[in-house]
Formats: sequence, C-alpha cells, structure tokens
Amino acid sequence: MPAFDEFRPLDEKSLVEYIKATPNLSSLLGVSDNYQIKEVGDGNLNFVYIVVSSSASLVIKQALPYIRCIGESWPMTKDRAYYEAKALKEHGRLCPAHVPEVYHFDRNMSLIGMRYLEPPHIILRKGLIAGVEYPLLAEHMAEYMSKTLFYTSLLYTTTMEHKREVAEFCGNVELCRHTGQVVFSDPYKVSEYNHWTSPHLDHDAEAVREDNVLKLEVAQLKSKFYERAQALIHGDLHTSSVMVTQDSTQVIDPEFSFYGPMGFDIGAFLGNLILTFFAQDGHSNQENDRKTNFMQELFHDSLGFGSAKMIRRIVGVVHVEDTESIADISKRADCERKALNFAKMLMKERRKFVSIEEVISIIEHVAS
Amino acid sequence: MPAFDEFRPLDEKSLVEYIKATPNLSSLLGVSDNYQIKEVGDGNLNFVYIVVSSSASLVIKQALPYIRCIGESWPMTKDRAYYEAKALKEHGRLCPAHVPEVYHFDRNMSLIGMRYLEPPHIILRKGLIAGVEYPLLAEHMAEYMSKTLFYTSLLYTTTMEHKREVAEFCGNVELCRHTGQVVFSDPYKVSEYNHWTSPHLDHDAEAVREDNVLKLEVAQLKSKFYERAQALIHGDLHTSSVMVTQDSTQVIDPEFSFYGPMGFDIGAFLGNLILTFFAQDGHSNQENDRKTNFMQELFHDSLGFGSAKMIRRIVGVVHVEDTESIADISKRADCERKALNFAKMLMKERRKFVSIEEVISIIEHVAS
Repeated sequence: MPAFDEFRPLDEKSLVEYIKATPNLSSLLGVSDNYQIKEVGDGNLNFVYIVVSSSASLVIKQALPYIRCIGESWPMTKDRAYYEAKALKEHGRLCPAHVPEVYHFDRNMSLIGMRYLEPPHIILRKGLIAGVEYPLLAEHMAEYMSKTLFYTSLLYTTTMEHKREVAEFCGNVELCRHTGQVVFSDPYKVSEYNHWTSPHLDHDAEAVREDNVLKLEVAQLKSKFYERAQALIHGDLHTSSVMVTQDSTQVIDPEFSFYGPMGFDIGAFLGNLILTFFAQDGHSNQENDRKTNFMQELFHDSLGFGSAKMIRRIVGVVHVEDTESIADISKRADCERKALNFAKMLMKERRKFVSIEEVISIIEHVAS
Repeated sequence: MPAFDEFRPLDEKSLVEYIKATPNLSSLLGVSDNYQIKEVGDGNLNFVYIVVSSSASLVIKQALPYIRCIGESWPMTKDRAYYEAKALKEHGRLCPAHVPEVYHFDRNMSLIGMRYLEPPHIILRKGLIAGVEYPLLAEHMAEYMSKTLFYTSLLYTTTMEHKREVAEFCGNVELCRHTGQVVFSDPYKVSEYNHWTSPHLDHDAEAVREDNVLKLEVAQLKSKFYERAQALIHGDLHTSSVMVTQDSTQVIDPEFSFYGPMGFDIGAFLGNLILTFFAQDGHSNQENDRKTNFMQELFHDSLGFGSAKMIRRIVGVVHVEDTESIADISKRADCERKALNFAKMLMKERRKFVSIEEVISIIEHVAS
C-alpha cells in the first residue's frame, strides 16, 4: 500500500488504493467492495472520477499543476483545489439545495471527494444546446446567486469576518490572474492563445483589438474585477458549471472563487445564456428587473461582465460547445458575429439599460 | 533592567530603560548619554516621545490598546503600530522625500522609533489656521499621493504582489472599521459619540440624519471604502497627518493604512483644506485638474470622500482644531453650517463637477 502524503497524479488503479487508505471515503463506499471507476473530466482543468460501489457513489476530483485542456505549457497551481473545496463548503452552507456536498478534502493530494450528481443530471450547457427547457432553472439560479452573494457581502456579514475571508481568498491569485488574462486582456490584443472562426471572423477579431472605446470599458471592468472585494463569487459561473435535471440545479467547479464583484457571477451566467440563445439559430431560448443605485450598478456590472464573457468565448482562448458544435462553419460564423456585435454594443451601452427585458428585446431584434 | 518582551505602556522613565536595552536606538543616540525626553502626543490615538541626546534625536511612538482621546472605553488594537510601521516603510521607499525614516520597530511593544521632524516643522493644520502659505505644499502632496497611490495599485504592480499585500493589510480591519464607523455611519444617525456646535447646529445635524438622498450617497461611498482594494492608502490623510516647513512636507501617522480607494486619501486631504478655508472667516486658501473615466471617477470619489470627511468633522465624534478653536461660538456655528451645507451639496452633486476650479468657485461663492 503506497503512502499518499505527497502529491501524485492518480489514475483509475491508484485511485482505488487511495480510497482504501482513506477511511472517510472507504467507510462511505464500503471497504471490501469492488469499485466501478470512470474518468469523466470533460472540463478544461481537472481530472474527475465517478466511483460507484454496491451501496454508494461519489466523485473524486483531482487538480493537476497545469490546465488540462491546454497542457503542461500553461502551468496552474494545484492549490486551486483548496479554494474550490472551501467555496463549495461555504456556498453549500449558504445554499445547500444547489451545491453538492463535500465528503472529503486532501490538500496534499489536491483532491476533493464529493456527491456524485447521478443521472439524469447533465451539464446545463448540453441541455440548452439540445433545446431542453428547465422551468425551475431561473428560480434555482436566482436563489443560488442571491444567497451566496448576499450572505458573503458586507450587506450581511461583519467587517471583521469579511476582511478575514478576503485575505484568505487572496491566495487564489493565480486563478484570478488567469481569469483576468483570458477574459479582460487576451481577446483585445494579439495573443497566441486566441482563436476564432477563421477566415470569416478575421476582420471582426481585428475590429475588437482596434476598438479603443471598447478597450477602455473592458479596462474599467478589469480593474473592478481585481479590486472590488464585494462577495465570495463562484468566479466561473458559465452554463458548464451547472448540472441540471428538470427538478434539480447544482452549481459545481468553483475553483476560480475569490472575493470579487457580484456582477461577475451574474454576468457570466447571463452572458452564457445569451450566447447559447444566439447559437440556437445554428442548430435548428430568460428574466429579472432591478432599479436605481446599488441594484442599478450591479445590473450594469452584470451586463458588462456578461459581454466580456461572450467576447472572450468568440475571439479568446477557450470557446464553448454551443458554437463549436455547429457543423456548418459559415453558419457558425454568422451566429458568432451576431453574438460578438451584440456583446460589443452591450459592453459600451450597458449603462443605458434599465431592465433585462430591454436586453432581451434587442437580442431578439438582432437575432431575427 | 526590566525585560521588554511583553507589552507594557512606557512612561518617560521606563522609556530610557527601553532605549538602553535596545541597541538599534542606543547606538543611534549614544549609549552613555543623558536623554532629554518630552511627551508630545497631541493626536487622538497614541503616545509620542521626542528623545534628544547630545549627538542625535528621534521620536518614539507607542500605540496603546485604546483610543487615547476617548479613553479605555473605546478599545483599539495596539497592533495598528505594525501596519503604521509597514506603511511608513513602503510609502517611504516609494516617496522618501515626504515620509520620515523608520529606525526601529518592536511589535511586542507596539513601538516605532523614527525620525524626529525637528523645528521649524509644525503640524500643517496649525500653519493653515495661522494663515501661513506653503508654496511647495501642493507639489509635495501631489508627489506623495501620486507615488504612494500609483505604485501600490494595479496600474503599476503585479496581480500576485497586489493580492499578497491586500491580504496582509486586511489584518488592519479594526482600524478600517473605526474609520468606517466615524466617517460613514455615526454622523448620519443618532450616536453617543456625535456632537456639534449646539444649539446652533441642532437642526442641521438632524437634517443630515434625515436626508435620505445624502445617506444613499454615503452608503455607496462606504461600500467602496470597504470593498475597493485599489491602492495602499494612508487612510487618515487630514492636515494634522502632515508636518511642514516652508521647504519640507512630511506625511506621518499612517496607522489607518490599508488597500482602499485612492479617492479616500485625496478626498481626505482636499476635504480638510476646504474645511480650513471655511474656518478662516471665523479667525480673521488650494489646486488640481483631471478628466474622463478613470481620472473622472477618481475625481468624483475624491469629492465624495472629501465631503464625508467634512461632514463627520462637524457632526461626528472627533472635530478639528480649525473650527473648535474659534472662540465666538455663533461665529463658529456660522462657519460650520456653511461648510456642512457645502459638503452635503458636494456629496450629492459631485458627479456633475469636471474640475477642481468649479469646486473652488462654488466654495468662494458660498463663503462670500
């Protein structure tokens, strides 16, 4: 039996040894059992194993010291697992209905043991692409975002508690910096990691890089992203960070969590919904209202961050299945151009919007 | 010879023992010397001793675990000395011409040994009250603020360095919370520590407490104060935190330092200059320009924080000598009312201002 007191990447075989050596996990699964193990990490960053025994199941997620989808050429601290576990526990305490339970965390191994979100749970993005309607999604996500954001902000918590947690999550700086780079910098300049539907969008990508008004707006949002420690945000709240059934909505993967602007989470989610809406045309469909001052700024922040998230998915390093899966490339480029132009307009004109209905009506106008 | 490895408050006698037991200090002053010691802490918080030997001089500042001017009824961590020493060293590295040198820091004793700012250095506020002009003050303060704020912000520093320092200064939360309370909360509600020139300003103080537009503005500034980790700010940059001669400008007392909005320092300084201007009438004068976006927001933040600083000095817990020293109470109240009304207007209308000249011209109009 090997020791696991130093980090090493697991595979399906050594994972069984790890589980047997870890009472937290083996007692849950049953010690003498044969485990069925399947690697399912289809994300960009980590290795994810589903482990099923005759009596129970769980997921094991291990962070490796680089970004899985790019490879060892883009190093990324495996300590992100620590912040992911911490955010899962904190958000889970605040909103247990929509965050999977954490059973086990091992900092040395950068490894989290957590609830297996059993079928028919699927990644929200895949459901949306397939045109599935989720009648409880808006209510569930509103509950998740309002509880996690409100209760970790100074609207609820004490200054002492808030500053302590802000300081703790400052340690997740590498992941913050990564987000800052891929969302707020790279799409607006020449970068080896950028790509877009080419040659169709070559001119559009160049126009993004040369639009000084747009770049001034994104620079302001970037500054807010790095400086405004408003609430413990998920940090990567796109539609692949949500698993759904018709009755259940579960938010996963908060390894990018830190104290940042609330609008970044709300915007990420809305931006990804809008992006999937624009992508629907290439294959063969939202709500809210807020007003004045704090809520108005939050609304405008959300629109701004949402547009930034859309732009980076069209001309930045990591794209989304919504558009990538459109087989006809010129159809895909048409969808992407409409989404890009809408996102650019939204970023520049976001302060003129007073309701999400207006945003929706323009989306419908642009898409038709 | 007693040991000083545990905190105890010093007096003039035990301070001599402390110096003799501390090679850093005794070697600077000369070991076998008779020291002249004088307690000069006229501030609100700490004990300050000037120590002079035949060959050298220095200042010893010791933080006690409460606020000196209020007493033991308002506890305040003595660990503020740690953040003061850290900010003095960092700001001193960035702007050595305008920050006194730190010779010695003792965390157990909450004690800083630093340059004695010899006569004719006086507290800027006293010089301004006396009507003295300081032709280099604007240039010096502009250099101090631009260097300390720019170089500790993400406009210059790396994300890694910035997050590490933000986390470190989160530890100074008690002092932040104190500022938050006395600047952004207490003046706008009934609080045992509030006072004002009474009965003259009774109605005015009540009007501040009942002005919902004003309270909404100050709530937004408070949120920015706590959440926006923009730069390592001094945190208490009023005109008694600056010592001056005709040629020298030295910024002292950064125990309230933390990563906050730049506008809080700039506003504190401008607000105190405007307050002293309004106070001049009771006894028997200012500069800057910036535009668009980042600089415009910084300008408006500065006007907002400046007004908050003025209001709290008229209806909050700790007032300023500028007004307190006006012997004729009805004259004093007249000055204060003008300053208060101006500050209220400025806080609400600050976003309409495009230059400091406009602010000055209204000040002149209101005061005439």
